[in-house]
Amino acid sequence: MTFSSNINTIDWLEPDKVQLIDQTKLPYEFVTVTIKTYKQMEEAIQKMLIRGAPAIGIAGAFGLVLGAIEISNLTSKEAFFSELISIANHLKASRPTAVNLEWGINRLINLVDTNNDRSIPEIIQIIKTEAIKMHQDDLNACKSIGKFGATIIPKSATILTHCNAGALATVGYGTALGVVRSAFEKDPSIKVFADETRPRQQGARLTTWELLEDKIPTTLITDGMCAHLMSKKMIAVVVVGADRIAANGDTANKIGTLTLAIVAKEYKIPFYIAAPLSTIDINIPDGSFIPIEERDKEEVTTINNKIICHRDVNVINPAFDVTPANYIAGIITERGIIKPDYTKSIADLFTGLLTK
Amino acid sequence: MTFSSNINTIDWLEPDKVQLIDQTKLPYEFVTVTIKTYKQMEEAIQKMLIRGAPAIGIAGAFGLVLGAIEISNLTSKEAFFSELISIANHLKASRPTAVNLEWGINRLINLVDTNNDRSIPEIIQIIKTEAIKMHQDDLNACKSIGKFGATIIPKSATILTHCNAGALATVGYGTALGVVRSAFEKDPSIKVFADETRPRQQGARLTTWELLEDKIPTTLITDGMCAHLMSKKMIAVVVVGADRIAANGDTANKIGTLTLAIVAKEYKIPFYIAAPLSTIDINIPDGSFIPIEERDKEEVTTINNKIICHRDVNVINPAFDVTPANYIAGIITERGIIKPDYTKSIADLFTGLLTK
Repeated sequence: MTFSSNINTIDWLEPDKVQLIDQTKLPYEFVTVTIKTYKQMEEAIQKMLIRGAPAIGIAGAFGLVLGAIEISNLTSKEAFFSELISIANHLKASRPTAVNLEWGINRLINLVDTNNDRSIPEIIQIIKTEAIKMHQDDLNACKSIGKFGATIIPKSATILTHCNAGALATVGYGTALGVVRSAFEKDPSIKVFADETRPRQQGARLTTWELLEDKIPTTLITDGMCAHLMSKKMIAVVVVGADRIAANGDTANKIGTLTLAIVAKEYKIPFYIAAPLSTIDINIPDGSFIPIEERDKEEVTTINNKIICHRDVNVINPAFDVTPANYIAGIITERGIIKPDYTKSIADLFTGLLTK
Repeated sequence: MTFSSNINTIDWLEPDKVQLIDQTKLPYEFVTVTIKTYKQMEEAIQKMLIRGAPAIGIAGAFGLVLGAIEISNLTSKEAFFSELISIANHLKASRPTAVNLEWGINRLINLVDTNNDRSIPEIIQIIKTEAIKMHQDDLNACKSIGKFGATIIPKSATILTHCNAGALATVGYGTALGVVRSAFEKDPSIKVFADETRPRQQGARLTTWELLEDKIPTTLITDGMCAHLMSKKMIAVVVVGADRIAANGDTANKIGTLTLAIVAKEYKIPFYIAAPLSTIDINIPDGSFIPIEERDKEEVTTINNKIICHRDVNVINPAFDVTPANYIAGIITERGIIKPDYTKSIADLFTGLLTK
């Protein structure tokens, strides 16, 4: 079975440009945009033409390569390095919560460091090759997450998901929706319930679009309906993505995730996170250290260009919330499913990788 | 202090017509419509020009009086009674969940029964006088609910509410928002957080509008944000309205209320219902007997006339959910605040009324 053959969220094209799907236009129009400068990439990330933690990790890396190419005419290597760090910092600041952005960019900067005796054209070739490899690795990671995750989906299950942790949030295939795709391949009787995910409606706009493109039965619900459905035993399992996972397993994900996790706990429904290792930030001990992005008020007050409330209303618009580790039944990674105690299982996972 | 002097949700006007605010137009336009027939009233209730359990109780009663006037030329009293019962049944069926609609209509039908020896014009005058009295009683009930409810609002509290249980959901002043208004009159440092309340956004459209018209500080949030706010200790108390309360205290209210109640319990935040006695249905033992209205799919898939998802998506759209009594800290009525055990406290309340 082929999945999402037409979803190519982000791709490197020769000569030296990036093509990405403009997700702000979905599901109305399928439009791809071409990015040729790091500034264009910064804007694409900020304005959420591309979004989803793993996808913006790759976008950040590609953006840095574009930036390096833009400054390749600098004759002094010192000036090149200093300018590249400045570009890296700009790109990292474009969105604060998902650690993947930092991860993707730092990986290339580290490579620049260890190759600082090479020429500028050589360095650019090295980070470009690495970024293209990271792109392929992300797809492989999603396929692995899918394979491991499918094992926790009961027969004919109804799976509730939030926001879009799908092909559109990654290079392709998806994390939470990778689990869905993999489970569906084995058992076409599973069904998905998709939270619309206000304010930006990634669930309504993106998740229903990509799942129905793959003919996976999907029911759209509003975010407040979760308790009603769970109380009626209409949900077997919850699987969502992540934007940053702390060393103790606390997980930042799209606003509304914590609400889901609490309600799932109340009804003893297992609540899973699906995310690649690049989303785990072992440098922070717990979720209180995760910066939560506050986005524009207009995302809440305006829908389809029309204001929906009194003009003088106050608004808060945190884009993410943090689900404490104790609500999480398991974290599905490309290396397998880790379980509580997460402080131990996450440390073991990373130690295992280091000693490999 | 004068509140909501300009909010007159529904009113009887001479000669024999009803004026109501078209709430589907708010907050964009303030438009009143004139209703002259019971069929127009039925449609106004179905299409939610008027909504909110107490308000549709009065709307149903006024609709029946209009219907009685329409058939007043019938010469046979038997035909008049039979036709009136048919009109009553039509009006009652216009929305199934709020018991107030049934309550308002049955109260007039009972009066017709006890006065069946009178002439048709006399009977019409009797039920019209009663309906106008019910209209005034609803306002008085809200003021009482406000007064009792204000006692449970802590100093400088942030109050979270869902949907619109305000002046627009009643004849005026409101139930949950009556509590807010009364508390604000004593303590202008209180603040309200209003859930937008998808799919129909009564919180965004109506609650922000009526609270800001009264200069009560209001912050609009999306429905999924509740857990984030509560985890940050930003909410002191939750107060919502009700559409039907069973004899054991189980409460049907706008979809999303159960989600709020569960999250509030998790953070030990008191969760209150504010509703008049007309919302309590002592004829049903528990919430499983409350019919839950399923509304149009388009309410979920379309916002401001634009589809927000894949066209082939499935949708469920239950308009209400049922919060079990054990999540409810108290039910604020016009006779005082009742507490668990609700089976006893509700029975005592109604017995007290009967023996008065």
